[in-house]
Amino acid sequence: MAEDQTPDPTSDDGGFALDRERLGHVRRALDAGDGAALAQLLDPLHPADIADILEHLDRKPRAALVRLYGAGFDGEILSELDESLREDVVGAMAPEVLAEAVRDLESDDVVDLIEDLETPQQEAILDALTAGDRVAVEQSLTYPEETAGRLMQREMVVAPEHWNVGQAIDHMRAHADLPDQFYHVIIVDPRMRPTGYVTLGRIMSHSRSTRLADLVDDSFRTIRASQDEEEVAYAFNHYHLISAPVVDADDRLVGVITIDDAMAILDEEHEEDILRLAGVGESRLLDGVFVTMKRRLPWLVVNLGTAALAALVIAQFEDTIAALVVLAVLMPIVATLGGNAGTQSLTVTVRGLATRDLTAANAWRVIRREAMVGVVNGLVLAVPLGLVTALIFGTFGIGAVIAAALVINLIVAALAGVMIPIVLEKLGVDPALASGTFVTTVTDVVGFFAFLGLAATVLI
Amino acid sequence: MAEDQTPDPTSDDGGFALDRERLGHVRRALDAGDGAALAQLLDPLHPADIADILEHLDRKPRAALVRLYGAGFDGEILSELDESLREDVVGAMAPEVLAEAVRDLESDDVVDLIEDLETPQQEAILDALTAGDRVAVEQSLTYPEETAGRLMQREMVVAPEHWNVGQAIDHMRAHADLPDQFYHVIIVDPRMRPTGYVTLGRIMSHSRSTRLADLVDDSFRTIRASQDEEEVAYAFNHYHLISAPVVDADDRLVGVITIDDAMAILDEEHEEDILRLAGVGESRLLDGVFVTMKRRLPWLVVNLGTAALAALVIAQFEDTIAALVVLAVLMPIVATLGGNAGTQSLTVTVRGLATRDLTAANAWRVIRREAMVGVVNGLVLAVPLGLVTALIFGTFGIGAVIAAALVINLIVAALAGVMIPIVLEKLGVDPALASGTFVTTVTDVVGFFAFLGLAATVLI
Repeated sequence: MAEDQTPDPTSDDGGFALDRERLGHVRRALDAGDGAALAQLLDPLHPADIADILEHLDRKPRAALVRLYGAGFDGEILSELDESLREDVVGAMAPEVLAEAVRDLESDDVVDLIEDLETPQQEAILDALTAGDRVAVEQSLTYPEETAGRLMQREMVVAPEHWNVGQAIDHMRAHADLPDQFYHVIIVDPRMRPTGYVTLGRIMSHSRSTRLADLVDDSFRTIRASQDEEEVAYAFNHYHLISAPVVDADDRLVGVITIDDAMAILDEEHEEDILRLAGVGESRLLDGVFVTMKRRLPWLVVNLGTAALAALVIAQFEDTIAALVVLAVLMPIVATLGGNAGTQSLTVTVRGLATRDLTAANAWRVIRREAMVGVVNGLVLAVPLGLVTALIFGTFGIGAVIAAALVINLIVAALAGVMIPIVLEKLGVDPALASGTFVTTVTDVVGFFAFLGLAATVLI
Repeated sequence: MAEDQTPDPTSDDGGFALDRERLGHVRRALDAGDGAALAQLLDPLHPADIADILEHLDRKPRAALVRLYGAGFDGEILSELDESLREDVVGAMAPEVLAEAVRDLESDDVVDLIEDLETPQQEAILDALTAGDRVAVEQSLTYPEETAGRLMQREMVVAPEHWNVGQAIDHMRAHADLPDQFYHVIIVDPRMRPTGYVTLGRIMSHSRSTRLADLVDDSFRTIRASQDEEEVAYAFNHYHLISAPVVDADDRLVGVITIDDAMAILDEEHEEDILRLAGVGESRLLDGVFVTMKRRLPWLVVNLGTAALAALVIAQFEDTIAALVVLAVLMPIVATLGGNAGTQSLTVTVRGLATRDLTAANAWRVIRREAMVGVVNGLVLAVPLGLVTALIFGTFGIGAVIAAALVINLIVAALAGVMIPIVLEKLGVDPALASGTFVTTVTDVVGFFAFLGLAATVLI
């Protein structure tokens, strides 16, 4: 089959990326205060795409859109919106529009929506819910943040163990308010403890008289409400779960988590890791100058401290440098290469810990491998570096010194890169958060010390 | 509800992480050559957990496990196995075990399994398939790697537009070989073009006489077989899709992609980004020394080049340093802080591009924000750094020079961090792959040049 070059079939509604042209039309409709034109532009869009448009607008036109779109503003748009903008947008919504918008959301989406809002806004949303939904949401909020209890939806389809396919289908036909998305019928014992689940596909494909208990899917796994959401995302990804029942401390069914929520968590966890590795914590692309500054500064301050430490090491060798200024020219090479090699093994290690591929059972193998890679890469880089340096400066000594210092620093870098995150993980600290600074501090200090120390001993 | 402290309910089968005790038992069973004990240990496990055990074993015991477990070796284990070990494990399997193992897999899993294998192994697996499956797999393989065509499964449930709920249920009951996992019945026109889909939940909850066309789900979106898998993962995450029909260039239905595959791709894409940012390309935790070295060395060689460039800049100021050796002590501070600030804005930018939050429509706003953050953070850090430096060295001049150089470098760092990935993306280069070196090269060169250049002008 030939590869087709025709445009993306979804491009008529903007494709998978933001449609700039539509954004321009939206801006013009807002400027003109033309609500009819705005509704015509937004109505055909998926809530996620409307959220994208909101994220692309400045504060004022954003509030104007919320006001002008009015009753068209669906609760799903709030769910899709970047957390940093939710407070703002909720604040701009008329109370009756907000009430209408949140009433259609599943309980897990309401929980996700309100957990980061201020108390008055939380109250406004809770008040808009039906009594039953409000209880469900408030109960979810009793679980700690970032646990399965916050992720789960209360809406689910449950059947007793003795039912057959026909009974399950009749039960579902009789209930108009089934969850928007569900993939399993959960089987519970008389004490509401889940004992298995049956996929809808299997129910469909068996005769009405088949017992549900005979169709139970072997992927069945329960999740504790108190479990960390990161564990939940891991379990879904590892075991290819589509949905999983959530149980309380007494093993009783309290909700269900579906894969789309697990996928969103996986995405967030990755984001957190990658941003933490770069020392930017919770940064968001849409943050303002002040928030961005506040998030990045602490890390730079730490860095200023570690840089001062490296300077202190160099200061010990001022006389050496004074005697041979070329050392100042060459010393950053050893430190920089060490920092990069350290970051390489650090990143592989942090990823391995996050994916559970690196465990206590194979840590030593990985550490040995890293040490060997440090030795080999050190030698491979040191030989040409040493030779070229010796040639340029016309003496063998300086080449030997830089080569030896580089080998030492690359071995230290490899070991620091693999061992620091492992130790931090053991201590209960997120290795992505703090490893980077530790590793580059080690490679800077060792790099300068090895190079200048060897030079002081050998060359001066 | 009190937070429960009881152990994870799944801990009896090893919880969500590798069970070290079981691994020890497996090792002993392998040493003893005790196939019965091995089967007893492995049979209760999910294929993903057996794959984890294989990944934790060295080459020899790994092959021993494959031989000893024999017919118990399920095709799913191969699918779950890290790609770097598949060739090895497939090679260790007896041909009849391999044939049996792959016969139960869905077509997308077979494609994923064989696309990275050598031709003889590919042939062995293709030969084991039924004629129909073989055609399906070979057809998927005609699509380029990393496209939707490779991800999709051929197994799906399709209904013509005029069917009602009863006809769909009867059709599914009549077909014993329904896909393992499916969530929608796809509705097609007479030319096999998908026009909508109905979730199984909605089919379940409506009477037999309801027309399928009236139950169509508005999340419906088709995906082109030629579309990049990264786009596919994005669409699933963005639109909360559970499954999506795949169409060829003529809009005809050729397969379906399910969310678990999209989640796996999302995970891989993140992995790729985070590893590329650290300059370790396709590294895998389980690679041997030689492969690891080969993957990391190129980046270190590039780095050696950029470090040499920085050294060249310093070399221009040898006389300045000779006159004032303390400059050598202080100069890495300016360069390091610039490198870190640059990495911060780089990482936020690369993430923003990956998540499509950063687009041409808001790029200028982000660039302005970064520049402002550079100015502010530069000033906030430069003032105390300048004062302390002036105090330590007893002259105002050196403090002013380092403060001014730091502000300059942090502004340059912020701009380089945001603009380099944007330009690379425009040029069609993965910004995660190459940005890091560019940015730190810029901050090193500018940092050394600004500091030493100002010092040469002002202090000497």
